[in-house]
Amino acid sequence: MKALEEKIKREGKILPGNVLKVDNFLNHQIDVRFMCEIGKEFKRIFSDKEVTKILTIEASGIGIACITSQYFDCVPVVFAKKSKGTNIGDDIYSTAVMSFTHGNINNVIVSKKYLNPGDKVLIIDDFLAKGQALLGLCNLAEQAGADIVGAGIVIEKAYQEGRALVEAKGVRVESLAKIQSMSEDGDIVFC
Amino acid sequence: MKALEEKIKREGKILPGNVLKVDNFLNHQIDVRFMCEIGKEFKRIFSDKEVTKILTIEASGIGIACITSQYFDCVPVVFAKKSKGTNIGDDIYSTAVMSFTHGNINNVIVSKKYLNPGDKVLIIDDFLAKGQALLGLCNLAEQAGADIVGAGIVIEKAYQEGRALVEAKGVRVESLAKIQSMSEDGDIVFC
Repeated sequence: MKALEEKIKREGKILPGNVLKVDNFLNHQIDVRFMCEIGKEFKRIFSDKEVTKILTIEASGIGIACITSQYFDCVPVVFAKKSKGTNIGDDIYSTAVMSFTHGNINNVIVSKKYLNPGDKVLIIDDFLAKGQALLGLCNLAEQAGADIVGAGIVIEKAYQEGRALVEAKGVRVESLAKIQSMSEDGDIVFC
Repeated sequence: MKALEEKIKREGKILPGNVLKVDNFLNHQIDVRFMCEIGKEFKRIFSDKEVTKILTIEASGIGIACITSQYFDCVPVVFAKKSKGTNIGDDIYSTAVMSFTHGNINNVIVSKKYLNPGDKVLIIDDFLAKGQALLGLCNLAEQAGADIVGAGIVIEKAYQEGRALVEAKGVRVESLAKIQSMSEDGDIVFC
């Protein structure tokens, strides 16, 4: 998605430790008008597929998923939660997800009520790098016996192993911007 | 908002400890079509006001805020984060917020880049009860020197002190459903 690549080049910042910071439009401040373009693009890519539910993970995925849902006839969005709150109940699917950004492991959960056999699930997330969050979401959908239609990712670090790990499970991965390499002097090369 | 009151009665569950669980449409699974009605209603209520930014707090506020933004000409959404990640930088506004639901205190932060003097901020959140999260968001906006246009809340527990605390700061509070009382046998009375 050319407009996204240009936006990343224009507004993204590369921080030490191979971190691409796009918090001015994607994961702290959200450019809602641009998210609508992203939602339309996911619809275009997955237009051949029936989708009955969008699955994402808190927090950054939620806004993208809700906007995207509108282009899929407002199917429900379910967001996996990163820790067990006091009022979620025991009737949950759960999986452990390592976060390399924060250096910790989260228990990621979804209520069994909201993922079911027969659901055709489109997974949406902001980033794909080492793939742990996406694998966790796939795992939750599989526990529920739902079909995974595919994974729609905004930004992929294509030089990391995430895509290979997820595709190895037979899941279709579609990323709107695929970064081939980036360097700390600010240079970003897209695939 | 009558449709919201009916939805709460139909789909909400009251749990021990005065917890209203509406996670089938608001804060775990999100009914995006209904969120559009909520966004329209916030626009109707605040139609007399100029809004340049919507401020909310992760995680449940994000979806509501992003959908609502579309009825305010897609103004940017900024979501406050509940703990300091490793890549947010030091240039932040910060405030401590007590969570009665989870029994802990979160450091709630916003990057200084995304709240500025001159911003006309509409604060959006899913619940208002004891008011701590909303007071924290007001505090962040005040630190930035931004104007607070008002606070748009989906569900208010009107028998708790949140509204009084926030109104005492001179902030206009508008809730789409105001609960006067609820009992563990499932009875909910709206104001």
